[in-house]
Amino acid sequence: MRPSVNRELIMSEEKKISLQAVQSAVSKLSYGLYIVSSFDGERNNGQLVNTVFQVAAAPPGIAVSLNKNTLTHSFVEKSGLFSVSVLDRDTPMPFIGIFGFKSGHDGRKCEKIVFKTLGGCPAVAENSLAIFTVRVGKKVDMDTHTIFIGAVTAAETLKDGPPLTYAYYKDVKRGKTQKNATTYAAETGEENA
Amino acid sequence: MRPSVNRELIMSEEKKISLQAVQSAVSKLSYGLYIVSSFDGERNNGQLVNTVFQVAAAPPGIAVSLNKNTLTHSFVEKSGLFSVSVLDRDTPMPFIGIFGFKSGHDGRKCEKIVFKTLGGCPAVAENSLAIFTVRVGKKVDMDTHTIFIGAVTAAETLKDGPPLTYAYYKDVKRGKTQKNATTYAAETGEENA
Repeated sequence: MRPSVNRELIMSEEKKISLQAVQSAVSKLSYGLYIVSSFDGERNNGQLVNTVFQVAAAPPGIAVSLNKNTLTHSFVEKSGLFSVSVLDRDTPMPFIGIFGFKSGHDGRKCEKIVFKTLGGCPAVAENSLAIFTVRVGKKVDMDTHTIFIGAVTAAETLKDGPPLTYAYYKDVKRGKTQKNATTYAAETGEENA
Repeated sequence: MRPSVNRELIMSEEKKISLQAVQSAVSKLSYGLYIVSSFDGERNNGQLVNTVFQVAAAPPGIAVSLNKNTLTHSFVEKSGLFSVSVLDRDTPMPFIGIFGFKSGHDGRKCEKIVFKTLGGCPAVAENSLAIFTVRVGKKVDMDTHTIFIGAVTAAETLKDGPPLTYAYYKDVKRGKTQKNATTYAAETGEENA
């Protein structure tokens, strides 16, 4: 057990801590960049996401954190399924822009996208190295976001090559952070995804 | 709602899916590489981890997935705190090896490491770009792993420069995957971390 003196230290440090100091430190974390797609039975929607990670080895468990404002979030809630497309590093910016900078709520942003059905869920195969579908088994409420966690029920590896990372997207492609991203720090004025 | 025909499709696909196909697809996900440290009041321990993620924006929420076999896991269970050290890309392999390839259960692997106390929790500042401490608020049981989720209570940015990524560690530094990692696919015979 931690002695009470340490607890007081933590409490006093918590009061002093600035959001800016936290954002500066956590901005050093590394991520990939993915399209997470889902459906409601009438239409499909996908959005750009950086927080997809493997949380268990056998069977492989996958977690994703989605902002509650997004259409994809409501589709995952309804269907209990989502797919992940691991983007190729050479994915053109206009293609990324379809998923990242336009809201599915405001229009049919994905109506020109050809979705492949994988494990009963739509998945974006274009510009993707691999796609897989996850059935949601657990949800964690994080106020603005929900973490959806589940097992992979279908998977396809499409091609070799380096995946698109968040660092490459920001530093080389000069991409911006969406306001619904967990890593958004209020520096941009972009639209919902 | 999804029509029943789709559900049957999923069920039949689940039967067919091979672990190898899943591992191939999910191996395309991108990660950073970090030291996650904790304590039990008597000693400190840290381990190499690739699954550290920001899961909420305001306040910044952080998730980490730890294998239940590790000493760090039991320390986080006891203390309710963990720190994250974001490693510099130039971190020497022998330094990484201290945390990655030796088990805290089998010896005092960290006794030569100088831990800095940050928010009441030990943190490894050496070779790190940033360090921050998280108080665990939620836990998710993933059988072999536990996902610990919480808010950042203390943070320090130490230096600029590129962070160490899992891809760089594997492709450039020729590092291997620990068997306790969520991304371990039984291709190596390394020791516990």
